Amino acid sequence: MKRGTSRDIRTANRYEVLRQIIAASPTSRQELAAATGLSLATVATLVGELLDLRMITEVGFEDSAGGRPRGLVAVNASGGALIGVDIAETYVHVELFDLALNVLARAEENMRPGESRPEQVVAHVAAAAGSVVAQAGVEAARVLGVGVSVPGQVDRATGVSEYAPNWDWHDVPLLDLLAEHIAYPLYLDNPLRAGAVAELWFGAARGRGDAVVVNLGTGVGAGLVLGGGLHRGVSNSAGEWGHTTLVLDGRLCRCGNHGCVETYVGAPGIMQNLRELSPRSTLLHPDDQTATIDALAAGVAAGDPVAVKVVRDTARYLGAGIANLVNVLNPEVVVLSSWVAARLGAPLLEEVREAVARHALKRPLAASRIVLSPIPSDPACLGAATFALEGALQSVGQRGARRAVPAGTRPRPAPPVPGPVEGTRP
Amino acid sequence: MKRGTSRDIRTANRYEVLRQIIAASPTSRQELAAATGLSLATVATLVGELLDLRMITEVGFEDSAGGRPRGLVAVNASGGALIGVDIAETYVHVELFDLALNVLARAEENMRPGESRPEQVVAHVAAAAGSVVAQAGVEAARVLGVGVSVPGQVDRATGVSEYAPNWDWHDVPLLDLLAEHIAYPLYLDNPLRAGAVAELWFGAARGRGDAVVVNLGTGVGAGLVLGGGLHRGVSNSAGEWGHTTLVLDGRLCRCGNHGCVETYVGAPGIMQNLRELSPRSTLLHPDDQTATIDALAAGVAAGDPVAVKVVRDTARYLGAGIANLVNVLNPEVVVLSSWVAARLGAPLLEEVREAVARHALKRPLAASRIVLSPIPSDPACLGAATFALEGALQSVGQRGARRAVPAGTRPRPAPPVPGPVEGTRP
Repeated sequence: MKRGTSRDIRTANRYEVLRQIIAASPTSRQELAAATGLSLATVATLVGELLDLRMITEVGFEDSAGGRPRGLVAVNASGGALIGVDIAETYVHVELFDLALNVLARAEENMRPGESRPEQVVAHVAAAAGSVVAQAGVEAARVLGVGVSVPGQVDRATGVSEYAPNWDWHDVPLLDLLAEHIAYPLYLDNPLRAGAVAELWFGAARGRGDAVVVNLGTGVGAGLVLGGGLHRGVSNSAGEWGHTTLVLDGRLCRCGNHGCVETYVGAPGIMQNLRELSPRSTLLHPDDQTATIDALAAGVAAGDPVAVKVVRDTARYLGAGIANLVNVLNPEVVVLSSWVAARLGAPLLEEVREAVARHALKRPLAASRIVLSPIPSDPACLGAATFALEGALQSVGQRGARRAVPAGTRPRPAPPVPGPVEGTRP
Repeated sequence: MKRGTSRDIRTANRYEVLRQIIAASPTSRQELAAATGLSLATVATLVGELLDLRMITEVGFEDSAGGRPRGLVAVNASGGALIGVDIAETYVHVELFDLALNVLARAEENMRPGESRPEQVVAHVAAAAGSVVAQAGVEAARVLGVGVSVPGQVDRATGVSEYAPNWDWHDVPLLDLLAEHIAYPLYLDNPLRAGAVAELWFGAARGRGDAVVVNLGTGVGAGLVLGGGLHRGVSNSAGEWGHTTLVLDGRLCRCGNHGCVETYVGAPGIMQNLRELSPRSTLLHPDDQTATIDALAAGVAAGDPVAVKVVRDTARYLGAGIANLVNVLNPEVVVLSSWVAARLGAPLLEEVREAVARHALKRPLAASRIVLSPIPSDPACLGAATFALEGALQSVGQRGARRAVPAGTRPRPAPPVPGPVEGTRP
């Protein structure tokens, strides 16, 4: 059992109730009590607080068999807006959400190869964040916060990117830099945790006790859902599966270690797999990870034997690495997420399943499903937005949050915000 | 948050309160509420139930600053006895405990090389269990249950050893076989989980949220304490770190995979490390793991360069494998446990710490301490006994547990049991 102060517990419970309401609106206090394991009295109090905050609304009654009709509540989608930022090595994605986590607007910026200085990254984020607010036409005052996902290890309390191996960032005060351009409250975390929460709320880990969300991009890692919640570890750096040794004394990794999983299955690792197989392949775009992965995906679709072999080789490493997670954690589901997984898609999944089956023990293997992320938008943006929501709820009634919301900017009755972008609700 | 029926939650809470009382007798209801996060009213109810069961007793009052004196409760050590069984590839250890988890008696049986048929193992367990009951002089009716730890993957519900790679056991109905010789309720689990619980209750993981207990014996694995509790995974097979790939295409493992951690750091793996370094070394006892590990320990103590090198080579593999756990789980503490760790001791620990530091990322490394198990007796026996206690509490008021306790055998006022074996209280 996690311990905490009664204030922590209350805040966590309020957030959990709101999460359940977002996941299944409309719903009753009775259903919320059943879903959260909290007493009906506690749920009623927390629901009252969320009603006062106008984050949820009463939406009528349902008959209960023979008893009094039960009041129903739903999330007040227009009660505020949240921004989720997914910073990757090759792009910045920003999405603006209503309180029901529908996407209202999105903006994408490509990062050119080599473009990795903090001020360059910050400029892209600021431009895209300005764009989504303008596109959606929401009043600035209605934006409850901005969740920012950045690769590598982060200190959430200070907003510092401690270490991002692929950019060689060390102790970059990212939130301070962003705060020079963005006036909303800012919350920092990384794509492993953002992606895991997205799957837990809306994706393949929904309702699962133990799940692993394998993030396949330039860097790789594994967001962990354990015991029904996000596992952060003691210093918020759990999930660094990309930097586990798979091939002792193998390829040199940017972290300084040898044979890390990431050196074989991150986008640059896949390029290396291709280079070792066919050094002059036209599939290889030496300075462009995105173009190379796209070329591989197209090559597999066209039956190109080199592309097929590279995906198979990659899946062999990936399968051994995922089997390690399956054997250690015994999860119900393993989700392949992020852009490399999305682009290589079903052919990669198929090969990975076979490779995991060759390496994992029978009992945990039988208990695990391996799937592609079903989230149609960017899971890291979605997860980052939930961190902003969590932060906004924590700072309610508590001045002196890291970046306090100016008075008067709390959600209030307001004209409805524009409808969701079509097909983007997970 | 873990969900469960209200009955599950009540049983879990009662067990958690009893655990806290055992860990810190005497204690007050107020302290128990603070330690468990439960309300005072809930704690008072659960304490009342444990008093009715005579598992705990009222032991007086303490002053509370200005308020009414607080009633104190303590575990009723003589309120029952528990047996913990640690079955390993080279030995069977059995310990008998009072309810405070003091060791009252112990028995050890050595397993000869090759002695691995289920009926041979069962005969050793039955002999040792009979011996501890006789030694301690407790009435059979006072024994609440027997927890049995057996290597490999087990099904707790059916009492079946599904797979024990080092013996090539498949689907052995171990509890049914034991029940032919042992009349007490029997509970099955494995040394990874038993060792983890022992550290959580009485050892290096006490009060820790996230801890890894690395079990080094013939087989190896990692018991996981996550979020303050044991992590079992969805099918009770989490922790199979011994069967994670460290050296892709490396040594063949008994599980069928190649390059598993166990093939380099389990006792037979260490023997192989020695063989590769110095095939004719007198340290090597080809058919005797215990003698070889003992010879290595003595050799290191005497400064024998081959022994020193073998321990260093082993620590190199072990360090890379433990760094993988540190990077993925970000624990507060890593505990080296079981007989190989105990025998190689401080020299191994020293080398492992250096090797982990070479492989782990800085942030999780800085958050983790690596220590030898401080538990002076056999941690797997201790942990197994807690599983028997858990089982006994679950079956209270619920007939039809897997092996129901005959009526009248529940704890009751009884003559004190003999005092603990000296120096064995963890």
